[in-house]
Amino acid sequence: MNVSGKNFQTIWPDPAEYSVHIIDQTKLPHQFVIKKLYSLDDVIAAIKIMEVRGAPLIGVTAAYGIAFAMKNNPSDESLKEASSRLFQSRPTAVNLQWALNRMNEALLLLSPDTRFDKAWSLSQEILDEDIMTNQSIGEHGLHLIESTFNKKTLQVLTHCNAGWLATVDYGTALSPLYYAFNQGVDLHVWVDETRPRNQGAHLTAWELAQHNISHTLISDNTGGHLMQRGEVDFVIVGADRISVHGDVCNKIGTYLKALAAFENNIPFYVAAPKSTIDTDTTKNFFDIPIESRHEEEVLMMQGLGHDGEITHIHIAPKGTRAFNPAFDITPHKYITKIITEDGVYSPQELRSIYL
Amino acid sequence: MNVSGKNFQTIWPDPAEYSVHIIDQTKLPHQFVIKKLYSLDDVIAAIKIMEVRGAPLIGVTAAYGIAFAMKNNPSDESLKEASSRLFQSRPTAVNLQWALNRMNEALLLLSPDTRFDKAWSLSQEILDEDIMTNQSIGEHGLHLIESTFNKKTLQVLTHCNAGWLATVDYGTALSPLYYAFNQGVDLHVWVDETRPRNQGAHLTAWELAQHNISHTLISDNTGGHLMQRGEVDFVIVGADRISVHGDVCNKIGTYLKALAAFENNIPFYVAAPKSTIDTDTTKNFFDIPIESRHEEEVLMMQGLGHDGEITHIHIAPKGTRAFNPAFDITPHKYITKIITEDGVYSPQELRSIYL
Repeated sequence: MNVSGKNFQTIWPDPAEYSVHIIDQTKLPHQFVIKKLYSLDDVIAAIKIMEVRGAPLIGVTAAYGIAFAMKNNPSDESLKEASSRLFQSRPTAVNLQWALNRMNEALLLLSPDTRFDKAWSLSQEILDEDIMTNQSIGEHGLHLIESTFNKKTLQVLTHCNAGWLATVDYGTALSPLYYAFNQGVDLHVWVDETRPRNQGAHLTAWELAQHNISHTLISDNTGGHLMQRGEVDFVIVGADRISVHGDVCNKIGTYLKALAAFENNIPFYVAAPKSTIDTDTTKNFFDIPIESRHEEEVLMMQGLGHDGEITHIHIAPKGTRAFNPAFDITPHKYITKIITEDGVYSPQELRSIYL
Repeated sequence: MNVSGKNFQTIWPDPAEYSVHIIDQTKLPHQFVIKKLYSLDDVIAAIKIMEVRGAPLIGVTAAYGIAFAMKNNPSDESLKEASSRLFQSRPTAVNLQWALNRMNEALLLLSPDTRFDKAWSLSQEILDEDIMTNQSIGEHGLHLIESTFNKKTLQVLTHCNAGWLATVDYGTALSPLYYAFNQGVDLHVWVDETRPRNQGAHLTAWELAQHNISHTLISDNTGGHLMQRGEVDFVIVGADRISVHGDVCNKIGTYLKALAAFENNIPFYVAAPKSTIDTDTTKNFFDIPIESRHEEEVLMMQGLGHDGEITHIHIAPKGTRAFNPAFDITPHKYITKIITEDGVYSPQELRSIYL
């Protein structure tokens, strides 16, 4: 998508030196920095400190992590260890596990000496598929929007960043909005700041500005008030994991917005690739691990200081403790439609496919 | 209440020079600064930039604003102009209007030459009453808590700051918690950060720490998740305006927490003096003016920099616009009890008193 009018993906390999370029998302929106990853350790660090984030992009980056591991040591033990370390880097998103399973299934069949080549090409395949998946999500979402709404300016609310920065390109939740905007639909997006990491303020607002889509930043507290006042036509978010019943694990705060949408009869859409669906039905979905991140993400804030440099400030009293769960779970009752690359489903329809 | 073990109020007059001391709340929690106000202009500025904030404290400070105006010029015109300017300084809280009405009713009966003395003594009276009101709220709230819950550690969630810093002393929502803590009730408070101005992080966390009450700071997005997981026994907040039906106008984001509490069968309490009740039943309460504050409160953040000084950073892309309504309205359906200085009422009981 657009960065200052130039086309970019969030991740692309350099086959000449077997490295991977990423956009360092911890520096956005203040600095646009391209970074290169060369090793499994680089990949794990990039995922953990969220230089790459968003469930689909984490999955693609992790695939390259396996490729780097195979370049270094293509043994079964190396594959197992790399998979385990990558899996633990972000425990909630299921796309990571999906990508690792896919790599493992393909590589374990091969003799070690051919594993790196296969890992490298399969990573590229997963990367390319992600783009096509998100294009399909965009088309299905566009059709849903066009067939549901008929008014001058469509008011949309989104939480966190499920735009192209959360994927390789196009995005999940924002892909239908890009498709709609490109079709000439008059859109305005309310962008939830999304504390504590401010993905809405840092990433979604930046993405939409680069694409000239009208938007307004709001604190996470504001969405309910807007919905109550009739200022939101629909909510659209991404997902980190979806149960076969249509329960949605997504960025912390999603649940509160879904409650407000339900209360005010506003459609609540979730857009995600099928790889986000957790088909393991042996466990209670509400017991999945919810990643608890460092309390400093709540206690400190990153931004641009007076000197034009990125800086961090303390925003709580010294000694204050914080609790920082990264995700919450919205029960399927509050989800209107789930948009995947295959089409648009109610939670009930999704259940009938998987159960 | 406690500041480093010493007893403080948020506001106290200096009769020797007819000035008023306030705690500059824009500097908390990083610096504890006492400031003096000498004039109507000082009072209006302090209210507008939120050196004093919280509906009850705004009311008391505004009373002294009238006194300063009467010292300068005790005419009817001066009284009218001062009242009008003060009223416009924060349009949503009804306590401000209540304090102004009370001052006007008393002063208009008097000849101009006696107005300043009366204004000064009546301001002190309103100040003293606020303390007693909040003590009563604390006692009634304590009784409610003791008669409702019977478990080891009581988990409480609060939004914004309705502690002693929002009043002259004791607070509204936090007064029952101080009373409970002093009675030996084992408490833990989840403190909503309360974007965009971070009153939870800046003021509530600081207050509770000064009083040694166990607490944990959370982003505003986190409360729903905690309630869903059974980690919250009750929610308690203050109010800026309450309708005779029990609808509650309070800090933006209150509505989302009330929806989550209702959904999870968690009591939602509102603590406020009777002066917060808007007895004007000729208008639709959902049409009351909701103050829209400057977008910079969303786009920038105040905190402590590396050099130990208070600084401001930009947290959104350059050119981003923001919308910043300060309050929302929670329909009475979601309110379990309203705690006033007279006792504890369901919305239905409140209605039967006023209608």
